[in-house]
Amino acid sequence: MAGSSFGNIFRITTWGESHGKALGVVVDGVPAGLTLSEADIQAFLDRRKPGQTSISTPRVEADQVEILSGVFEGRTTGTPISMVVRNTSQKSGDYSEIASYYRPGHADYTFDEKYGFRDYRGGGRSSGRETIGRVAGGAIASKILKSMGIDVFAYTTAIGEIAIDYDKFERDNILALPTAMPDTDANAKAMEYLQTARANCDSVGGIMECKVTGLPVGLGDTVFEKLDANLAKAIMSIGAVKAVEIGDGVKVASQYGSENNDAFYMDNDIISKRTNHAGGILGGMSDGDDVIIRAYVKPTPSIFSPQQTVNRAHEDIEIQIKGRHDPIIVPRAVVVMESMTAITILDALLLNMTARLDKIQEFYKK
Amino acid sequence: MAGSSFGNIFRITTWGESHGKALGVVVDGVPAGLTLSEADIQAFLDRRKPGQTSISTPRVEADQVEILSGVFEGRTTGTPISMVVRNTSQKSGDYSEIASYYRPGHADYTFDEKYGFRDYRGGGRSSGRETIGRVAGGAIASKILKSMGIDVFAYTTAIGEIAIDYDKFERDNILALPTAMPDTDANAKAMEYLQTARANCDSVGGIMECKVTGLPVGLGDTVFEKLDANLAKAIMSIGAVKAVEIGDGVKVASQYGSENNDAFYMDNDIISKRTNHAGGILGGMSDGDDVIIRAYVKPTPSIFSPQQTVNRAHEDIEIQIKGRHDPIIVPRAVVVMESMTAITILDALLLNMTARLDKIQEFYKK
Amino acid sequence: MAGSSFGNIFRITTWGESHGKALGVVVDGVPAGLTLSEADIQAFLDRRKPGQTSISTPRVEADQVEILSGVFEGRTTGTPISMVVRNTSQKSGDYSEIASYYRPGHADYTFDEKYGFRDYRGGGRSSGRETIGRVAGGAIASKILKSMGIDVFAYTTAIGEIAIDYDKFERDNILALPTAMPDTDANAKAMEYLQTARANCDSVGGIMECKVTGLPVGLGDTVFEKLDANLAKAIMSIGAVKAVEIGDGVKVASQYGSENNDAFYMDNDIISKRTNHAGGILGGMSDGDDVIIRAYVKPTPSIFSPQQTVNRAHEDIEIQIKGRHDPIIVPRAVVVMESMTAITILDALLLNMTARLDKIQEFYKK
Amino acid sequence: MAGSSFGNIFRITTWGESHGKALGVVVDGVPAGLTLSEADIQAFLDRRKPGQTSISTPRVEADQVEILSGVFEGRTTGTPISMVVRNTSQKSGDYSEIASYYRPGHADYTFDEKYGFRDYRGGGRSSGRETIGRVAGGAIASKILKSMGIDVFAYTTAIGEIAIDYDKFERDNILALPTAMPDTDANAKAMEYLQTARANCDSVGGIMECKVTGLPVGLGDTVFEKLDANLAKAIMSIGAVKAVEIGDGVKVASQYGSENNDAFYMDNDIISKRTNHAGGILGGMSDGDDVIIRAYVKPTPSIFSPQQTVNRAHEDIEIQIKGRHDPIIVPRAVVVMESMTAITILDALLLNMTARLDKIQEFYKK
Repeated sequence: MAGSSFGNIFRITTWGESHGKALGVVVDGVPAGLTLSEADIQAFLDRRKPGQTSISTPRVEADQVEILSGVFEGRTTGTPISMVVRNTSQKSGDYSEIASYYRPGHADYTFDEKYGFRDYRGGGRSSGRETIGRVAGGAIASKILKSMGIDVFAYTTAIGEIAIDYDKFERDNILALPTAMPDTDANAKAMEYLQTARANCDSVGGIMECKVTGLPVGLGDTVFEKLDANLAKAIMSIGAVKAVEIGDGVKVASQYGSENNDAFYMDNDIISKRTNHAGGILGGMSDGDDVIIRAYVKPTPSIFSPQQTVNRAHEDIEIQIKGRHDPIIVPRAVVVMESMTAITILDALLLNMTARLDKIQEFYKK
Repeated sequence: MAGSSFGNIFRITTWGESHGKALGVVVDGVPAGLTLSEADIQAFLDRRKPGQTSISTPRVEADQVEILSGVFEGRTTGTPISMVVRNTSQKSGDYSEIASYYRPGHADYTFDEKYGFRDYRGGGRSSGRETIGRVAGGAIASKILKSMGIDVFAYTTAIGEIAIDYDKFERDNILALPTAMPDTDANAKAMEYLQTARANCDSVGGIMECKVTGLPVGLGDTVFEKLDANLAKAIMSIGAVKAVEIGDGVKVASQYGSENNDAFYMDNDIISKRTNHAGGILGGMSDGDDVIIRAYVKPTPSIFSPQQTVNRAHEDIEIQIKGRHDPIIVPRAVVVMESMTAITILDALLLNMTARLDKIQEFYKK
Repeated sequence: MAGSSFGNIFRITTWGESHGKALGVVVDGVPAGLTLSEADIQAFLDRRKPGQTSISTPRVEADQVEILSGVFEGRTTGTPISMVVRNTSQKSGDYSEIASYYRPGHADYTFDEKYGFRDYRGGGRSSGRETIGRVAGGAIASKILKSMGIDVFAYTTAIGEIAIDYDKFERDNILALPTAMPDTDANAKAMEYLQTARANCDSVGGIMECKVTGLPVGLGDTVFEKLDANLAKAIMSIGAVKAVEIGDGVKVASQYGSENNDAFYMDNDIISKRTNHAGGILGGMSDGDDVIIRAYVKPTPSIFSPQQTVNRAHEDIEIQIKGRHDPIIVPRAVVVMESMTAITILDALLLNMTARLDKIQEFYKK
Repeated sequence: MAGSSFGNIFRITTWGESHGKALGVVVDGVPAGLTLSEADIQAFLDRRKPGQTSISTPRVEADQVEILSGVFEGRTTGTPISMVVRNTSQKSGDYSEIASYYRPGHADYTFDEKYGFRDYRGGGRSSGRETIGRVAGGAIASKILKSMGIDVFAYTTAIGEIAIDYDKFERDNILALPTAMPDTDANAKAMEYLQTARANCDSVGGIMECKVTGLPVGLGDTVFEKLDANLAKAIMSIGAVKAVEIGDGVKVASQYGSENNDAFYMDNDIISKRTNHAGGILGGMSDGDDVIIRAYVKPTPSIFSPQQTVNRAHEDIEIQIKGRHDPIIVPRAVVVMESMTAITILDALLLNMTARLDKIQEFYKK
């Protein structure tokens, strides 16, 4: 219940502040026998690193991960995997002013009220850097799922008013383009859109989507531990996400039952669905179809135009935020969404092994 | 991790199938000293009862609650409160056919795959009747919150294409009108819309919203136990909900930062916000403003027109569902949303007591 | 964290007060497909029923269990199993005096201080009747384990100064004799010992032991979720238990390493141990040998001789307890120990399925 | 449920292997505002450091702790505190032989069976070095408790057959003497006893005790989350502990109720007990008296005399263990017991704040 852990059987516990000595994660419940190296983790972390494109902050962080435990002779041992990323580039001197007031759209005020004071350097624990631990954990979950034919991948579908065209979807673009959009045309338009926003000292929101393919049927539970309920928590827990949907999502509210229901049919020997309005989840359990989740992300709250706010002395003031801030959160958050999804799916997959007595008996029969 | 419990300090554990002997809930972690009677619970349960209006199933269930433990001389004792509602009206004979095939949009197929077989009578555990336990628990959470000046209330904001006009919002309508809309005009239009859908052997979706007023600042945590993350799980765990949003929700994706940020200002001595795009939550913690959550609900999957599906023998078939089914889920789900919200908020409020050392020391000083 | 649940994947949530309307349990995470009837549960409950022998209270409670959910056509469905036992024999009129003071050795004082007041009738939630839910849950866990060749059974090894002779161990005696001792001679002596104690208006303590045979190697975890750690919690949570030990237990403190170490050897193809000082657990994990747990139980605190205590008005007083109380707790607690052990073992067995990647991959390969 | 976390509101998650790069802990749920430095932690860690006395292994480990997060300007911020101790002295070359067989009394065999292989260097995760994280977490819990007048301290009461004399109890001795006994005479005898055992290539067991003073009444819960149940788990989870008792512990089994019951009386205005057989816990809740827990620890399983065992190739072999091993575990485990006790008590103290509605209402009233 302490707030920095997520998952049950496969569980991550993250820690670290934006400008503290380091950030990291302990990943517990990792099945033994997985081949794992720092390179596996680094590939994920590099996707959320700042300073890589014209739309991400020029702050350069190496964000090099070190694995401190849980791996022996290149394989996981079943014991917790502790991973650390040292902070190298922070300049705490920048933040003396920010300490005195509450930035709109940030956690400054709520944190101060809850805890009495806060580590104001770079947003402290509420910084986007908090997600380093999630992504390091997600890299492990993803690798396990991949070894079982389950593929989890996320991408940007909209930046402000610029949406992708699903007909132009090319998966390779996701990692290649700065917006993490799978569509080159949309990427080009979005980049322009972002330059304009930045020129206006403003920021923009966007949409990201995650798809999971190759899932067995039946992951998730019937009531509170529904697969979609846990995915909703996982994704909503990412800073700046304000809405989460599964499959057709918000659109279902204006659909008729005759449109929304996905007809089953036999595709050779396999039970399949003609459509996937449900987004791969029926009654809280995976139905064998692709799971589709979408997250709506608010604009970066740190904007460079003047804003009205109050200070810790409870006076109305006008502020102007300085520093290094991306005009959009989405492209670097895509790998966070992918990570949280992988962790949630893996946890459900492990728990699902205990659902049926006959399978348990078979497991232990030798 | 077992799937029928929700909450940490204040925790509900629900049980029961649609056509089993009974349904109910154990509510643990209820603070001692609350005045509580069956009437408090019944008032909540009556809001989700079938058979009350022309748009809800004519099936008549008394749904009378009995409190079996945890209350002594009219007050809660701090021990778990067990509540039971006996099923009285089920006719299991109706369901022999349904046992043989998988209804589109239902959990029949996923349940069978996961567990090997299912209680097919009335949807078993995946029935809407499962929410009886949630609502009984929510009645208690709501009463506790109310005693502290915190008000939780939910209502319908759209049925299919008919949306409410917020200018016509009258709270009393929520309980008075069959749609649970706070706007009489929208209610009238929606009733017509529903009659048409039903005449077409079809069903419709809708939107429900929940508002929480009077919250202290700081409820919720910074990372995974964010208040919005837990609300998202709570609400997405309600059957048929396919999207959840906080505050401006999906709209934030196309907003600029300058629009989305809520300016702080001093309202006399109190830190307030000029707008509430954030929906009362900043950085995962309540900011003192109204918390606003919205849920998008799919159309009732049980429709009376012919549908394509497969049976347990893995053959393609056409089916026509019979029986008693509401053409819309939303009006009766509103109280479920209210209940899940109240439970989530109360749990966060209890946990928040342990955030600061000075307050803990003061608590134990006598 | 709410205090009335135990277990993770297989979890019981108990409720009910001694003189409330009923007591019961919700058992969640029961694997689907187990044949289960009320008779399975009743057989366990009957072992803890009062009024059966000369050393148990003459209060007659039918303690008839009713299964309300989770079983369909005679098999578990994977959904929570709710079980209820109605109270029938309580006479609340007896307890007016007890309400006013704090009985030595009971929870009266601590409960009052914690919660502000208490349900004083028959000890309320702190009564031995609280274990009804544990035993009903344990009956299910036991049946599942038995289906996999794992046998859990508990018995009395000492009553006051009368200890059993292991050479005279006959398992059938456990259920046949009033003391639940496996040794008829010890039983006879213990019965005499108890009559004397009762004649002296006094009560006595005792020891109970539980053995688990047929366990696979590797159940339990390396650090906090050690099998012995969870067993210790499970057993210490039974009212009146004041010490728990595994294998040689307290004796290890005065042993040499050369005595205490159990030598491994090959018994045909199977790795075995020459001795079992460890009680079947090494490094927190089952080692394939019999698991042996022992619990030391204090004398019934309700004795009929005069006692010094204080009342709620904070005055020193002398009291003399009346009513119906066993002179010993152990014989009826044996089935509670067996139940808590079975639940703990089963939970560990389910979790253990997720320890190795190769076995997970094999489970999902088809 | 993942096995390396302990506690609910105040929760530690430990990680690290004996000969890995480092060991550490993440401590979550630490109340904000506690003054904390590495010196506070180091003082605790130094008590479990090897190489300090003639009875502890000559292996020299600096065991220097580094705090990586959760502390800002010398105070805890409410966010997780990550602490790391780098391994410096390990020589992995020593362990090639040990990799091939299963040491009696160790987790080698069970670990291999569960996970398929193991990090055999120095016992891997099953090494006593695993407790570094526990002690670092315990230092924080202890400091918080101390700030509220609650004192937790542990010590050795017996080494093999040498027991302390409580009349010679001097608290300062605990930290000053190599045995951690509070009695200088017993310490002298025990040192002699240990030298003999070591000369015989043998090891010995012992007893440790922990006392908690200054507790408020009512910590702990009535059923599964009893304070004694959680203490039993906490202490039994320490490697080599085979029995745990509260208060009179095993002795209660041969007591009469008239002996065991602690009479209440008014000590001026305070409800007190004439005796403390209960060890400060009644009905699972603290009764205001000293809490007393005792742990029975087996002899170090690594002994230097020849032993029979089997190897990974499933052959009977004789082995002779080399290396650096203490002839007794107890003196260095005392601080581990103290730490686990402090963590358990603090967690119960935090949870207890939510027990009564009137106190919750008062907490939130401003």
